[in-house]
Amino acid sequence: MHDYQTLRLEAQGAVLFVTIDAPPMNLLGPELVRDLVLLIEVLDQGEPYKVVVFKSADPDYFISHVDVHKIAAYRQEAARLTGEASIALLFRRLAETKAVTVAQVEGRTRGAGNEFILNCDMRFAARGRAIFAQNEAAYGLVPGGGGAQHLVRMLGRGRALEVMLSADDFDADLAEHYGWINRAFAPEVLAPFVTDLAHRIAGFPAAGLTLIKERTNAISLAPVEDFRRDSDLFGSAVTNAEAQQRIKAAIELGFQTRAAEMNLGELLRKLAK
Amino acid sequence: MHDYQTLRLEAQGAVLFVTIDAPPMNLLGPELVRDLVLLIEVLDQGEPYKVVVFKSADPDYFISHVDVHKIAAYRQEAARLTGEASIALLFRRLAETKAVTVAQVEGRTRGAGNEFILNCDMRFAARGRAIFAQNEAAYGLVPGGGGAQHLVRMLGRGRALEVMLSADDFDADLAEHYGWINRAFAPEVLAPFVTDLAHRIAGFPAAGLTLIKERTNAISLAPVEDFRRDSDLFGSAVTNAEAQQRIKAAIELGFQTRAAEMNLGELLRKLAK
Amino acid sequence: MHDYQTLRLEAQGAVLFVTIDAPPMNLLGPELVRDLVLLIEVLDQGEPYKVVVFKSADPDYFISHVDVHKIAAYRQEAARLTGEASIALLFRRLAETKAVTVAQVEGRTRGAGNEFILNCDMRFAARGRAIFAQNEAAYGLVPGGGGAQHLVRMLGRGRALEVMLSADDFDADLAEHYGWINRAFAPEVLAPFVTDLAHRIAGFPAAGLTLIKERTNAISLAPVEDFRRDSDLFGSAVTNAEAQQRIKAAIELGFQTRAAEMNLGELLRKLAK
Repeated sequence: MHDYQTLRLEAQGAVLFVTIDAPPMNLLGPELVRDLVLLIEVLDQGEPYKVVVFKSADPDYFISHVDVHKIAAYRQEAARLTGEASIALLFRRLAETKAVTVAQVEGRTRGAGNEFILNCDMRFAARGRAIFAQNEAAYGLVPGGGGAQHLVRMLGRGRALEVMLSADDFDADLAEHYGWINRAFAPEVLAPFVTDLAHRIAGFPAAGLTLIKERTNAISLAPVEDFRRDSDLFGSAVTNAEAQQRIKAAIELGFQTRAAEMNLGELLRKLAK
Repeated sequence: MHDYQTLRLEAQGAVLFVTIDAPPMNLLGPELVRDLVLLIEVLDQGEPYKVVVFKSADPDYFISHVDVHKIAAYRQEAARLTGEASIALLFRRLAETKAVTVAQVEGRTRGAGNEFILNCDMRFAARGRAIFAQNEAAYGLVPGGGGAQHLVRMLGRGRALEVMLSADDFDADLAEHYGWINRAFAPEVLAPFVTDLAHRIAGFPAAGLTLIKERTNAISLAPVEDFRRDSDLFGSAVTNAEAQQRIKAAIELGFQTRAAEMNLGELLRKLAK
Repeated sequence: MHDYQTLRLEAQGAVLFVTIDAPPMNLLGPELVRDLVLLIEVLDQGEPYKVVVFKSADPDYFISHVDVHKIAAYRQEAARLTGEASIALLFRRLAETKAVTVAQVEGRTRGAGNEFILNCDMRFAARGRAIFAQNEAAYGLVPGGGGAQHLVRMLGRGRALEVMLSADDFDADLAEHYGWINRAFAPEVLAPFVTDLAHRIAGFPAAGLTLIKERTNAISLAPVEDFRRDSDLFGSAVTNAEAQQRIKAAIELGFQTRAAEMNLGELLRKLAK
């Protein structure tokens, strides 16, 4: 295995369990992006791993969101895979990788964290614990990692707009109801269900799994240009004065700290004016 | 403010509450279309109103449907905005306006009324009170205001066909279940929820809201040609003998009266033969 | 009426009830395909039948799946309608036929059986009895009859991938929750509901029904090339050694027998390795 700093890998036959472990709150910074690049290169081979399950070492945070202090740095790490400094194109490559990808979400995942799971093939979550948000609107930004591309196609125009424009937190039950995740399970049932599903799929021939992904992506995965456009819109807007002022105000309220982000949806409400 | 005949406007900061008030049953006639044209011109500016909430002064009717006695007249009013005598293109312009649009539905909305809310950005409804229908099939017509374009994309082919071919009434719970509306709420909870959501969104920077709408429309709003085609198909079919005979028979049964339309789904069943 | 071997037809006014009766388990073999070709030619006329309801004479099986011993033969029968030996193109023609098509599912329908109902206009099912699966992945295959085209568009990328990659059985409640079927009903309510709906629709003018189908298909029915591509991928993969070995192993476990397929989802699990 590669030398990962923020991911712990455990293989069980053709199933690879990947635990995201980037304390203090699994921010998407350069280290995690570097590790995801390495991992995708492994998953692209389709062998020996047919299925990968992503989970978190942190019960409260899956991937919290990007580290707003390190945007240039993490984008540069993404370029090692795609040639372009863009999280959107990195995540789109995840959606195209040969291995089947499953997100097992027990805690919070927002912004680019939510875009990570949207680019996985399936999403299952712990009822009463998991929280989802696509909250760039609070800062005057658009989702930059493909969030709009997946949310609009899966939830439909009305619910996707509610998610993105409200910038609010959605629990696992509502996320399931909206088709944002496949299903919500009681926390004690989640891991056994996902593990069983992963092994079941991994027992089937690799060629069929890959071909089903290809045919599905041909229908539902937005073109590279659209991911790139979202990424560029995020990148140019994040440097403007209003966005920077909103991000600064959020940080003063506790943004990018574990405690304050337990209830980030409410924190962002205070930001509104 | 303009001099509206059928709309009552109340601004609360950057949120504009628009109450549809066109007695006796909020038919979509030339006056209401004229007012919607004026309003969209305001909303297109994106300032000072970032969010608009549509509701009805009539507890039983949101927008009942078009006034079948005034089709040429209301279409002509729509042309003042789009240059074409078509409700479909007017409603599509609503879907593209800069302000975020929210429909708060407490009563019945059918035909073009339903197409109005489908071209809003979000839809919330009162459980046990709101009723939805896309019922042109009962007269041998197709939805002429973009209904098919939105229903098929949001509900999927099977459920959209059920809605349009059955021409039947759907309550708020089933509409929520089908993804037709965002969510159904108990009547006393609906207005507080929508008001809170509107103010939350209006507290965020206008540029991001507009950009999120643009990116979403690029994915999910059907091309002008498809709206125009639906509109033309409706316009040419509505004048043929069979449609005119069915509309006449419906009027004899009480169509376009408050009392009979409380249960229009059943009235249309009597029309079938 | 034509001389059908596997279909029983009963007309009630403009509604045609078609009962699939191909013992011992309603496999899709050359006889059933031949009969479907004949039937589609009738439905294409749009008169005298405006609505057709498909149901099964077998309480446990709607259409179980293709007869794996007769793939070349049933494909050849399909060519009589479309000129191409492909179930996908036959089913796509069903989706385009003038009559409105409704599947009333009381038992199991998997693989091509599921693709048959996906190409109907609406699907209603018996709660606690109906079972759905798109399970080609278990053999290293892709759905060859348009399953991916419909599932991805109706269920969204994540749920469609779960359905196809897991190759598992889904009950009527979960199928309804995922938007795979329109609605699930208690078994004693299903037939009355569907019969009533069929007669309601059949009471409306034929021209409008056909036009609504056309407009809906223009939005949501995948192009012929995509159906053909799925069909070709299935056809070429089904002859390779791995697929043949998996199918042989399944047959040894009871595949293509009534008893073993009552719980086919579990049988396929044993196939995994």
